[in-house]
Amino acid sequence: MADFSELLLKRRSIRDFEEREVPLGLIREIVKDSCLAPSSENKQPWRFIIVNNKKWIRRLSNESKKNLLAIIEKNPDAPSKKYETALRKEDFSVFYNAPCLVYIVGPKNIQSVYVDCTLAACYFMFSAASRGLGTCWVGLGSNVGDPEILKKIGMPEDCRIVAPIIVGYAKRIPAPPERNEPKILKIVS
Amino acid sequence: MADFSELLLKRRSIRDFEEREVPLGLIREIVKDSCLAPSSENKQPWRFIIVNNKKWIRRLSNESKKNLLAIIEKNPDAPSKKYETALRKEDFSVFYNAPCLVYIVGPKNIQSVYVDCTLAACYFMFSAASRGLGTCWVGLGSNVGDPEILKKIGMPEDCRIVAPIIVGYAKRIPAPPERNEPKILKIVS
Repeated sequence: MADFSELLLKRRSIRDFEEREVPLGLIREIVKDSCLAPSSENKQPWRFIIVNNKKWIRRLSNESKKNLLAIIEKNPDAPSKKYETALRKEDFSVFYNAPCLVYIVGPKNIQSVYVDCTLAACYFMFSAASRGLGTCWVGLGSNVGDPEILKKIGMPEDCRIVAPIIVGYAKRIPAPPERNEPKILKIVS
Repeated sequence: MADFSELLLKRRSIRDFEEREVPLGLIREIVKDSCLAPSSENKQPWRFIIVNNKKWIRRLSNESKKNLLAIIEKNPDAPSKKYETALRKEDFSVFYNAPCLVYIVGPKNIQSVYVDCTLAACYFMFSAASRGLGTCWVGLGSNVGDPEILKKIGMPEDCRIVAPIIVGYAKRIPAPPERNEPKILKIVS
């Protein structure tokens, strides 16, 4: 396990992975660590779907791409418009070449579900980095609407996807991108 | 700096603090670490307001309490109803006896502001724990509406409070509350 100051620099968004499977046991350990996140009223609303089959990952990418393109066609001002060129490429996967994808999902009727599952996702990414794995939160990967697909991946109807996270062994860990200086608006002393 | 596996157990929600100020330099270091969080399209939308004055922390607690009670009076089904008894106690502070309060805020017009600032908040809580400080995300502390107060704490009109986090030296670090078994809905292999 890494020292936290190292981990801060080691946790990078990874989009290029080795051709190497991630042992399911490791994912289970990371999921267990993620459940130590704090949550509003200790509700622990997070649930996990693990996809470690490349054909399924491709299918989920295609489903998200299709739905994103439909959104762009309806509304050319949609934020995903800037990804249109990539999305139209047949061989582009929103999940890159990741060997594993984990969806963190939670009940739609829990007001804090976004915040709670995001905290679990942050724990997930740190825990993975501490075990030598790379991750990336792929916002484009959450547009799954097909009821048949949702059913097959075990998604309950009353839940929504908060965090689609890809996992694998990084080909290399890039340097952190330039960060802005911290914006401290005011110190009230 | 702590090993991450220790940190996972050390990062507890702390609600009882020593009578001891937190050096501003430490808060600045933690803020800097928080800015290493990932964000959607690397927008880094987080901004920080540091309140290390007990009178101001009390004033912000009173403002949140007043607004929460107004919500409960209008709507007895409001989720904060369960806190009514505490909220009506004059000496109850939603921020407990914390010597320092940090608001993580971000622009209302950025769609990912909740997720991005929550990731920064998670980094903040880990970084604080690694430096021997206790934190707690206090959801009840975000109901600040008075324009005069908002102006005095340096809150831009186009921003919203995402994470109110109290910081201080813990009187003791409680054991983690019982966690549910991880809910893995499906493994798609």
